Amino acid sequence: MSSEVKSGNEHPQSYVGFANLPNQVHRKSVKKGFEFTLMVVGESGLGKSTLVNSLFLADLYSDRKIPDAKGNGHHANGTVGVVGNGYRPTTGARNGPELTSQQLLEKFHKNVKISAKTVEIEERGVKLRLTVVDTPGFGDAINNEDSFQSIVKYIDDQFEKFFHGERGLNRRNITDSRVHCCFYFISPFGRGLKPLDIQFMRQLHQKVNIVPVISRADALTKKEVDDLKKQIRREINDEGIKVYTLPEVDEDEDQEYKEEVRQMKEAMPFAVAGSTTSIEAKGKKLRGRVYPWGVVEIENPEHSDFIKLRNMLITHMQDLQEVTQEVHYENYRLQKLAEEARAGQAELILDHHAGDTATDKEKMKRMLEEKESELRKMQEMMAKMKAEMSMNSSK
Amino acid sequence: MSSEVKSGNEHPQSYVGFANLPNQVHRKSVKKGFEFTLMVVGESGLGKSTLVNSLFLADLYSDRKIPDAKGNGHHANGTVGVVGNGYRPTTGARNGPELTSQQLLEKFHKNVKISAKTVEIEERGVKLRLTVVDTPGFGDAINNEDSFQSIVKYIDDQFEKFFHGERGLNRRNITDSRVHCCFYFISPFGRGLKPLDIQFMRQLHQKVNIVPVISRADALTKKEVDDLKKQIRREINDEGIKVYTLPEVDEDEDQEYKEEVRQMKEAMPFAVAGSTTSIEAKGKKLRGRVYPWGVVEIENPEHSDFIKLRNMLITHMQDLQEVTQEVHYENYRLQKLAEEARAGQAELILDHHAGDTATDKEKMKRMLEEKESELRKMQEMMAKMKAEMSMNSSK
Repeated sequence: MSSEVKSGNEHPQSYVGFANLPNQVHRKSVKKGFEFTLMVVGESGLGKSTLVNSLFLADLYSDRKIPDAKGNGHHANGTVGVVGNGYRPTTGARNGPELTSQQLLEKFHKNVKISAKTVEIEERGVKLRLTVVDTPGFGDAINNEDSFQSIVKYIDDQFEKFFHGERGLNRRNITDSRVHCCFYFISPFGRGLKPLDIQFMRQLHQKVNIVPVISRADALTKKEVDDLKKQIRREINDEGIKVYTLPEVDEDEDQEYKEEVRQMKEAMPFAVAGSTTSIEAKGKKLRGRVYPWGVVEIENPEHSDFIKLRNMLITHMQDLQEVTQEVHYENYRLQKLAEEARAGQAELILDHHAGDTATDKEKMKRMLEEKESELRKMQEMMAKMKAEMSMNSSK
Repeated sequence: MSSEVKSGNEHPQSYVGFANLPNQVHRKSVKKGFEFTLMVVGESGLGKSTLVNSLFLADLYSDRKIPDAKGNGHHANGTVGVVGNGYRPTTGARNGPELTSQQLLEKFHKNVKISAKTVEIEERGVKLRLTVVDTPGFGDAINNEDSFQSIVKYIDDQFEKFFHGERGLNRRNITDSRVHCCFYFISPFGRGLKPLDIQFMRQLHQKVNIVPVISRADALTKKEVDDLKKQIRREINDEGIKVYTLPEVDEDEDQEYKEEVRQMKEAMPFAVAGSTTSIEAKGKKLRGRVYPWGVVEIENPEHSDFIKLRNMLITHMQDLQEVTQEVHYENYRLQKLAEEARAGQAELILDHHAGDTATDKEKMKRMLEEKESELRKMQEMMAKMKAEMSMNSSK
């Protein structure tokens, strides 16, 4: 990767003082490494795996099976090079030439499977533990009404895990599997968004940072790309869908970075082509797709928004995590607490009617404790925000 | 069009005799003109209209509206240049910015509309009256379980019309709107057939000549095209789907034509790119798609099977019509007669029980007449076949 996560370490190492705090944060995060979870959603054949592999130069999907319409997997050649952890709410023996009635059913009412894989990438001493959550089967069935369910459930499940971890005793060792970003793949052949695209984004936009991506954009001419982008932006706006938007650039950032972000914003939704094939063209080695009429260079900004998408992701990993924590997870948590409060009150009323004053008091005590714990958390958060603000102003 | 419908007119005009029969047939058909009905089916965005316009160099769809996911039509610029006759089993006001509840319903349970347009094309004095039946909306909904219904119904309706016409008094003026060929568009991004593709072909292959087409094939490299073709051929075979196959070439045809047909057979399913845009490249005018990395020439056999598809259609129009008449329509007719016979017998039994012998006799008389009419038709057909055989052998 050519860019790296930005952090304020412009000051010389000899200087020791308040301004060194960012360096401490920096050193600590280098030691600890970064964690990031990316989800990819879109019809099969839109190049999800190829794009992810191109973005991180890692072969995450070398061991995957490509299913035909029957659901039989054809093993792709290659070796497994990932840490790997699977999440499969429903599984079944899907191999062998004979179809069971279950498989025949799946063939036309294909379930969406969720599978998560983790790779560790190291670059200039900075470790990134990247988890990619794939959603094979999305949109591939004749009837796709159930396509969202398992995806919504997966995202909620990770929030739920974190919610319990946060309230438990050993808060230091919470494993955070929340999804920080979701690339949603749009077909280049649509004349805008399909009903399935709109439904998906509507169901998910308050749970995860959606980054819509026009994939396999090398099937479109320049004018077709521009028209499709305009149409998609219009529809996203008209449908009231909230996709992830880049935050305002601070006034004191350098001009080059400001210009880069301006171009990123302008290019959204990114129209990308992916490839992991290394080819020789114009006397240099590059990754691309070789057609009889020419070579698509995926890192050439005239051919594809690939570099823009990669830079956007890398320079905004922290922002994507913060929005996940402060907006999407907070939504989930407040909803959860409201549910609990309602359930608690209902119990209180029931208990009151039964006249059991001892249990009554215990319940109220527990609710009070929870309220206090909430208050403490808010104070912690405010303290953290203040610290960050003073860091920023001291830069 | 560079090719024209083949007919045996190699003999000098002075010769008069039995061998002139084909010339008579030829002259008559030139006067009468040819009629052909082509249906196009496939998800929107797969380039159906562009391909049809490219094939016949006519702008059939200059007046079409491209609907967004809401179902609102955006009027495309252009003038109407077609004879036009619409077939819409269900219609509704689909314009205006506000959505009615009916439109909201349609948005996610999009109906497949059927629309037929007729153009008259003349080439070297030979007239072709071409009807293109379009099926907008196919495969575009979230739930596509009803996608086939209106298409199956349309094809059956045309058989039904012809069936009634054939039995009526004025048999000379039967209008024949039966579908002779159906181009089924397959996405280049699938890894073979989708469940929807398989279901469609299974439901239709005994009613119409299906010619599967991999469309927008300029999104695939040469190897990807080859792999996809192999996979589709395998699946069509495994699923027991009967697509249209080219008939054996007569031994006495010239070597060049034999080779052409061999290449056509080998290339199926045709992988095509369409374009109506005239461009200047390599110092000549051609139709193609201009990408930043090169120009796809749609008539270049190295770039696309477009020419093969066009030649296949033109050299096999008559065969497609014959298979429609002798296989698909015959299937329909026999089924229809069997149904009527069953209904007749049921009535007979009922009548018999009622003891109404007068009606009984009338029914039997009618059935006998029908049987006789069947026999006459078969004799006619045999006579026609014999005539054709002797024509062929006299060539």
